[in-house]
Amino acid sequence: MLEQVRIVLVGTTHPGNVGAAARAMKNMGLADLVLVAPKAGVFPSEEAAARASGADDVLARARVCASLDEAVADCRLVVGASARLRSIPWPVWTPREAAPRLLAEAARGPVAVVFGRERSGLTNRELERCNALLHIPANPAYPSLNLAQAVQVTAYELRMAAQGTPPAEALPEAATAAEVEAFFAHLERALVAIGYLNPAAPKQLMRRLRRLFLRVRLEHDEVSLLRGILTAAERLAPRREP
Amino acid sequence: MLEQVRIVLVGTTHPGNVGAAARAMKNMGLADLVLVAPKAGVFPSEEAAARASGADDVLARARVCASLDEAVADCRLVVGASARLRSIPWPVWTPREAAPRLLAEAARGPVAVVFGRERSGLTNRELERCNALLHIPANPAYPSLNLAQAVQVTAYELRMAAQGTPPAEALPEAATAAEVEAFFAHLERALVAIGYLNPAAPKQLMRRLRRLFLRVRLEHDEVSLLRGILTAAERLAPRREP
Repeated sequence: MLEQVRIVLVGTTHPGNVGAAARAMKNMGLADLVLVAPKAGVFPSEEAAARASGADDVLARARVCASLDEAVADCRLVVGASARLRSIPWPVWTPREAAPRLLAEAARGPVAVVFGRERSGLTNRELERCNALLHIPANPAYPSLNLAQAVQVTAYELRMAAQGTPPAEALPEAATAAEVEAFFAHLERALVAIGYLNPAAPKQLMRRLRRLFLRVRLEHDEVSLLRGILTAAERLAPRREP
Repeated sequence: MLEQVRIVLVGTTHPGNVGAAARAMKNMGLADLVLVAPKAGVFPSEEAAARASGADDVLARARVCASLDEAVADCRLVVGASARLRSIPWPVWTPREAAPRLLAEAARGPVAVVFGRERSGLTNRELERCNALLHIPANPAYPSLNLAQAVQVTAYELRMAAQGTPPAEALPEAATAAEVEAFFAHLERALVAIGYLNPAAPKQLMRRLRRLFLRVRLEHDEVSLLRGILTAAERLAPRREP
């Protein structure tokens, strides 16, 4: 579905931003880039290619259109980025709200996210071509993201939404409760043997150690390692009469 | 809380990335930037200032450190970015998973997110200084984000979490990175003293113990407790000639 999401850059003036946007798109699995009336020399350009790094395939496929209408003509959902919250009474979505809606529609055909000029963004007229506005939450004192950074955040949210909840990482084998309890018994014996724990009053100390080692969720191999250390310490302790 | 989240850039080679990272930070409300051993000419530099755009206050406050240890010494939670999923079995968090954890701890003092070199990232040794790894979900065929873009995505998730997360439950005071490193040094000495660790080949064993005790995120009082046990064990060990 990610390949059905088009990124449209309107009136871009810095070639580096085109390249960086292409890289951000490819990093997140997007591939469809359209430039509307870029400033002369912006695309194609050496600087765009340099900043794209390994994403030159995205640049090679990119198309240039004369108008926003042309760029989004086949799209069923068009969202326009706006750093300022305009007076126009359009629905405003964060990237997190927009991503699942874009993907749901992308199952049926192309959709677009439109980003405006570096200095001035999209005009009200352009925003009024959109189904909804995209607003990236930001520091109110300094809300305007670099163009490629805004593309990055949006593409990241699209990928997160496409992945759904990531599968839990494969973890090493946890110790069983019985193994952990046997470790605690061994720990208590060893602490008595080395003279750190008073067997007449073990309660608080062992409780604190239990809290630590239960919190970490010991692995099978870690129990063996820790018990090896305890055995080495016990060997040094003076023999006591039982 | 966002101002307690430190962004640490290790070995940065492109001045533009420092400036773009500062802008991304300020856009999201972050302010604490530390550079560890940047390449000569990277900072301060005209290119960094130009790319920072209006975020020159973040650059003006940025500090340069000689080592990662120095940069994170006062931090209670340190997360290291890794594009590749390394063989080292550390916990791996997405930015969305890491953000609320960082903010919960930031309520009480500095925390850090560490980003590595543009070409090679963080070394395994540097990652082993961290409590957890940060992995930005990405296209497996092209997973490596530009440095400033990785900072942007992370800072965005921090802002989203700051806006949405209720205040964290009161947690006991975590140990600082410097306290934890001092514990590891003490642990290694004690293991040598009791004859468990061969000082000629300490690597794997200490790495496994680091992984365990960094994963649990030791509290200040727990470090004292564990070091008390180590001191008791050392007292029993036969004196060795230095």
